[in-house]
Amino acid sequence: MIDIFSKHESQVRSYCRSFPAVFVSARGSRMTDATGRTYIDLLSGAGALNYGHNNPAIVEVVADYLAGGGIVHSLDLHTQAKADFIECFQEVILQPRGLSYKLQFPGPTGTNAIEAAVKLARKATGRVNVVAFTNAYHGMTLGSLGLTANLAKRKAAGVPSIGAVFMPYDGFLGDIDTMAVIRAMLRSDGSGVEAPAAIILELVQGEGGLNVASTVWLRRLAALAAKLGALLIVDDVQAGNGRTGSFFSFEGTGVTPDVVVLSKSLSGFGAPFSLVLIRPEHDVWKPGEHNGTFRGNNLAFVGATKALNTYWRDTALSSAVCRKAEVVSRRLKRIANAIQPGLARPKGRGLFQGLEFSRGDDARLIAASLYVAGIMIETCGPDNRVLKLLPALTIDDQDLDLALDHIEDEVIKLLGRADLPLSA
Amino acid sequence: MIDIFSKHESQVRSYCRSFPAVFVSARGSRMTDATGRTYIDLLSGAGALNYGHNNPAIVEVVADYLAGGGIVHSLDLHTQAKADFIECFQEVILQPRGLSYKLQFPGPTGTNAIEAAVKLARKATGRVNVVAFTNAYHGMTLGSLGLTANLAKRKAAGVPSIGAVFMPYDGFLGDIDTMAVIRAMLRSDGSGVEAPAAIILELVQGEGGLNVASTVWLRRLAALAAKLGALLIVDDVQAGNGRTGSFFSFEGTGVTPDVVVLSKSLSGFGAPFSLVLIRPEHDVWKPGEHNGTFRGNNLAFVGATKALNTYWRDTALSSAVCRKAEVVSRRLKRIANAIQPGLARPKGRGLFQGLEFSRGDDARLIAASLYVAGIMIETCGPDNRVLKLLPALTIDDQDLDLALDHIEDEVIKLLGRADLPLSA
Amino acid sequence: MIDIFSKHESQVRSYCRSFPAVFVSARGSRMTDATGRTYIDLLSGAGALNYGHNNPAIVEVVADYLAGGGIVHSLDLHTQAKADFIECFQEVILQPRGLSYKLQFPGPTGTNAIEAAVKLARKATGRVNVVAFTNAYHGMTLGSLGLTANLAKRKAAGVPSIGAVFMPYDGFLGDIDTMAVIRAMLRSDGSGVEAPAAIILELVQGEGGLNVASTVWLRRLAALAAKLGALLIVDDVQAGNGRTGSFFSFEGTGVTPDVVVLSKSLSGFGAPFSLVLIRPEHDVWKPGEHNGTFRGNNLAFVGATKALNTYWRDTALSSAVCRKAEVVSRRLKRIANAIQPGLARPKGRGLFQGLEFSRGDDARLIAASLYVAGIMIETCGPDNRVLKLLPALTIDDQDLDLALDHIEDEVIKLLGRADLPLSA
Amino acid sequence: MIDIFSKHESQVRSYCRSFPAVFVSARGSRMTDATGRTYIDLLSGAGALNYGHNNPAIVEVVADYLAGGGIVHSLDLHTQAKADFIECFQEVILQPRGLSYKLQFPGPTGTNAIEAAVKLARKATGRVNVVAFTNAYHGMTLGSLGLTANLAKRKAAGVPSIGAVFMPYDGFLGDIDTMAVIRAMLRSDGSGVEAPAAIILELVQGEGGLNVASTVWLRRLAALAAKLGALLIVDDVQAGNGRTGSFFSFEGTGVTPDVVVLSKSLSGFGAPFSLVLIRPEHDVWKPGEHNGTFRGNNLAFVGATKALNTYWRDTALSSAVCRKAEVVSRRLKRIANAIQPGLARPKGRGLFQGLEFSRGDDARLIAASLYVAGIMIETCGPDNRVLKLLPALTIDDQDLDLALDHIEDEVIKLLGRADLPLSA
Repeated sequence: MIDIFSKHESQVRSYCRSFPAVFVSARGSRMTDATGRTYIDLLSGAGALNYGHNNPAIVEVVADYLAGGGIVHSLDLHTQAKADFIECFQEVILQPRGLSYKLQFPGPTGTNAIEAAVKLARKATGRVNVVAFTNAYHGMTLGSLGLTANLAKRKAAGVPSIGAVFMPYDGFLGDIDTMAVIRAMLRSDGSGVEAPAAIILELVQGEGGLNVASTVWLRRLAALAAKLGALLIVDDVQAGNGRTGSFFSFEGTGVTPDVVVLSKSLSGFGAPFSLVLIRPEHDVWKPGEHNGTFRGNNLAFVGATKALNTYWRDTALSSAVCRKAEVVSRRLKRIANAIQPGLARPKGRGLFQGLEFSRGDDARLIAASLYVAGIMIETCGPDNRVLKLLPALTIDDQDLDLALDHIEDEVIKLLGRADLPLSA
Repeated sequence: MIDIFSKHESQVRSYCRSFPAVFVSARGSRMTDATGRTYIDLLSGAGALNYGHNNPAIVEVVADYLAGGGIVHSLDLHTQAKADFIECFQEVILQPRGLSYKLQFPGPTGTNAIEAAVKLARKATGRVNVVAFTNAYHGMTLGSLGLTANLAKRKAAGVPSIGAVFMPYDGFLGDIDTMAVIRAMLRSDGSGVEAPAAIILELVQGEGGLNVASTVWLRRLAALAAKLGALLIVDDVQAGNGRTGSFFSFEGTGVTPDVVVLSKSLSGFGAPFSLVLIRPEHDVWKPGEHNGTFRGNNLAFVGATKALNTYWRDTALSSAVCRKAEVVSRRLKRIANAIQPGLARPKGRGLFQGLEFSRGDDARLIAASLYVAGIMIETCGPDNRVLKLLPALTIDDQDLDLALDHIEDEVIKLLGRADLPLSA
Repeated sequence: MIDIFSKHESQVRSYCRSFPAVFVSARGSRMTDATGRTYIDLLSGAGALNYGHNNPAIVEVVADYLAGGGIVHSLDLHTQAKADFIECFQEVILQPRGLSYKLQFPGPTGTNAIEAAVKLARKATGRVNVVAFTNAYHGMTLGSLGLTANLAKRKAAGVPSIGAVFMPYDGFLGDIDTMAVIRAMLRSDGSGVEAPAAIILELVQGEGGLNVASTVWLRRLAALAAKLGALLIVDDVQAGNGRTGSFFSFEGTGVTPDVVVLSKSLSGFGAPFSLVLIRPEHDVWKPGEHNGTFRGNNLAFVGATKALNTYWRDTALSSAVCRKAEVVSRRLKRIANAIQPGLARPKGRGLFQGLEFSRGDDARLIAASLYVAGIMIETCGPDNRVLKLLPALTIDDQDLDLALDHIEDEVIKLLGRADLPLSA
Repeated sequence: MIDIFSKHESQVRSYCRSFPAVFVSARGSRMTDATGRTYIDLLSGAGALNYGHNNPAIVEVVADYLAGGGIVHSLDLHTQAKADFIECFQEVILQPRGLSYKLQFPGPTGTNAIEAAVKLARKATGRVNVVAFTNAYHGMTLGSLGLTANLAKRKAAGVPSIGAVFMPYDGFLGDIDTMAVIRAMLRSDGSGVEAPAAIILELVQGEGGLNVASTVWLRRLAALAAKLGALLIVDDVQAGNGRTGSFFSFEGTGVTPDVVVLSKSLSGFGAPFSLVLIRPEHDVWKPGEHNGTFRGNNLAFVGATKALNTYWRDTALSSAVCRKAEVVSRRLKRIANAIQPGLARPKGRGLFQGLEFSRGDDARLIAASLYVAGIMIETCGPDNRVLKLLPALTIDDQDLDLALDHIEDEVIKLLGRADLPLSA
């Protein structure tokens, strides 16, 4: 059956090259292929399945909605499902956190929401420049791509970008204080860098290698943005929806972004959905100035409402994520210590962690072996040196342990024990 | 309840300003609001609901798939649902039409697919310029927006576009042969216009005012593209999926585009989905060079497969569309003739027709009255002068007649009978 | 000695490849090479030597100024020489023609002046787009190059241009009314072309092939620019300074441009000099916003003042140009008629005329033979099909006749007499 | 007479606002105004008059050349004057320094030469990005302006720049090693900054505030450029022609740029002239790919040849510059020490030095007082905080001392003696 894909689908396909099975069903953290084999899924749809595949509570309400003749597609018309989602988001997410945002529903993908956020920032400030960071990834449509640091991907645009300026992310310059560099480049009249419309970042860089922005650094960045009159945009497409333990990645930092972008896991069951949160004073859109056919994906509204009600009215999920994150963290440290020093180091936070390998192909080789062993896991970062663990937040402890055991085995198999000489 | 929207949703919302009811359910061409009132829907989700709301055959298989634990989200992994769709698309759509295309599944929105198509054309040709047409609309992300003629929308980008060149669409210059102009501007070395990577168009301009490209003109354009070594991209996002009577809008023209973009109604039930069809020789993508989290929307695969099997294995739908198109056409002519000459003229083809009014606000006023009368219909074109009928292809004859009766009534109410003097 | 050039000078050199002699002196329309051979110069420094080489009256005052210790270089400081020029320009050129312009002295090259004019137009209007024409040539620095239609030259920029839109020049579309096309593309909201900051053109396209804008067309263009709120910029770098018979090329058309750019022959003796004339209401520059080290070239001021005083206080030169233009015109017609019909047609106006050949290499071959015969003449237009006569305005009648005789001989030698069959 | 300028000249004029006299003659370092008053000129035409005004030896040969009927204007034809210059430049400048460059003569301004250099780098590498530095100034035409750090000047372009990336110049980040930052941003795949076509810099930033690149830093930069495959372009427009003591600013550093740009003082007497030096392997121009009407300014060739023969065949001028630079350096230190600590610090090298004041308006106030005292001097750097001494290299010691005495007086007058409390 794989012939169907190689024969008829474009060369652009990628994940299926690393994980070539044909999958037929999935539940929670397990996927099953056409031969009946099951895999533990540490991809989670690149972060789109934080509540696991086919989360029963969520899927049930979606199926009921469909069965009841609920509207599926509605452009941006008022629907009951949308009203319910908006109310729930206010009540469960924004109000308890003291946040005040207007909600924009753009086309239901992360990149579309990023484009909307950046357009809005340019419109609100009358400026052109947008500051993005080293190793940033924000999407593949032209506007987002211009803010994506990966040059191979950006080159595919075929046109140079306008108004994107890259600054070093926290830690990118080793011992050098990146914020001092950023300030000098953005605040000095003679720097050559125009005052930006926005500064956009992920608090944990998902594709960029699980680099983490420290709270202190983020606060300095937010203060700088405020001084410059630039909007601070947090891209929480991958880091949001509980991935770091809290619903938003910036909770607890004291920083309130001007704009927040959510997508991926927001619908609760993997349906396309995205959301731009805009501080009311920046909601300068004219009617219809950014639109899209699928901006009213009611199945996503229904699923998202259920997900919020199920997982974010109390702290059970958050606590579980923190507990599991602790497990992952401990195990990754143990693995790093089990092999020759310097070969691997743990990165990330929450259930958004990984191991960065210092040698070129190690991460990829390990991911390949793990697939053979029944664990689906991807790599990220420049040169794909980071093995990236992105389990469902709801993964059960046994599966998580099992996956970590396999990872430990494969790492040690490839790189040897710390107490043994490295194989040539 | 409308307060929820005005209080919490961004100013950007648009359709709900013209149609402010809160909708709770829908079926076929009828939508029902929270007060129990029903409306005849001539919007059809801006063309995303060609098979009507909640088409029972389609929704049923989607619900069954969900109930059966079928994979919902899969990035671009191989899934059974995707294999089934690809096979079905080959068998039902491409092979019978003698077409050979590779399928690319980008992020599931029209604009994302347009961005992919344009990137690919630039990559395949090594050129920058893309020719778009007057009154073109291709989407709201930066790359697509650069190809969109509406200046208010494009201005919202906040940055000038690179590499977009606008040429007059068939009929745009009145009596002047637009193709002679286009040829001179694209083929002469001294014209100042660089050889394009692609020429992109809709065969019926959906947002641009229901302008129709004639077959002769299209053939000349395709021949020109071939001579220039430019890819001909047909944006069939709104005009495809049977809207003009045939599955693709270009069937019967003798022209085979290099790239075709589909979206909107493709899933069959309004779920986000898009597809780029690429002639095999142009499939120069490297793995992962254009990706997106939701490019494997399996509910859409399942719905689309069912829609193709139900409606495109025989000619029943096509014939029905042609028959209804004839009805619409006849009625619109009658309406235009019923009022003062020159005030309105019919446009479009298939179930993609409308009335262009020569005076500024007529179309909007009529649409507003129609909403009061229970008919949902939108306007399009520069200054929104075109009343645009976009019924479900599956609308039953009574509803279509009823809608047309209402339209006739409202037009005559506003503009008077041809045999009576126009009210001051 | 030619070795010096081929060994040490960049490959970029061009004229010297067609005219490889080493020149040592020049006077009027005659150049003398190192072997003592003289040539009749129909290049006139690409229009920079309208008063001939080393015009004695002009060179004398320049030499006197130098000898007297007059300031040579002065940035934009006030100097006596500059004051004299400004007064003279007012008195001799602007006032008699009822023109009111502010004078800007940018860096002393045509392209620098074009850049200044375009920057000013963008600043004055707050718009980005600039409309240039097919076959336009405005210079080689990045801003001017973006407005230059020649694609080979423009490609050398290495970056796509922003904000340049090309429209068909008068006659470019054969029988089609180019102004109808331009209007439709610039005035319709749905055309996709943003309202321009400026429309820039030469009234006779010097590099572009001696295409002439008719007065009626120019008036319609000026009216359109006014309606659009765009500045009309006339590039009189090559067509000004008397080349068409009047000082400015637009005299007698009834059109007063918003901005006029002069350079080339302005200094009177071939010294670098340029001038931007700005309608007072558009002089929105801030101090120093466009500058340049050599914007106060006092030798050029001195030469220019002398040239104006000598040639533009009465109509003698104008009359002589018109008389000689008539001679050229008559002879070119005779030549065209002497050969097979359709092979050549006269173009241009004033002493800015030429012959366009329908076959690819004819113009170049003829120019090459003429060089052998002692006539220096260049080609222009797409594919260099136009033999371009650019004699000094002060050329004496014998030299002009002699040159025309040679041209006639060479054309007939290559293309045969009209009454004889064309050689295979 | 000043009315002539305010009435008829554009608002863009700038130097004449600070130095409003009307100048009539000049010689060496002295300018004389219409009232007979003389000034010591420390502007030197913004570096265009390194050999003083009307240097007698140079002016004499230029006058003789004119008198002898030598060709003034020649496009890029071979002329004796050009051959002489090329030979002289080889013999006097390049060969003794072991340098091998092809010579390109673009339009005769610094900005035109920068544009040529940057175009060539893009063409030679097939890349778009060009790295410029904080506080860089490279000219006012669009390509150069994009590489100019001053935002007010750049904003006047009216269009965003493409392909310019600004990096911190040596010292810009205080204690932070700028080269470490630059390396990280240019060499890491994940940095988001595309590999550059060129890195362009001045070794002493003339407009940017007399910042000096250290030799060690320059070497590291050159090594980085080589590793990146980027061309190293040294803009020696202001820093070359002996300004720093050696002919080129990079002599003695061990670095050989790929491209060097010269202009300003090159002609020897202030005539427009510029030159691009290209390592032979990078001379990938096609004939005529960058041209310009005034690229054969023979008066400049003649003057330049004389200047080279007079001043660069021995080390007398170099030694004198070093000696005078030492004087300036000592005096500026003394002045800085004479006032309150921290108020002023000396900067620059060679006869390219100045005093940076820590408080906003000090430099401008001092320059204004100096003008009253008969000293013409300008300010530079962000906020114009640097008083910039740019005497002719040939200034005699008395004038230099006199000027320095005046500077000392005015500084102390405004800022008080170090041993006295600062006036409130």
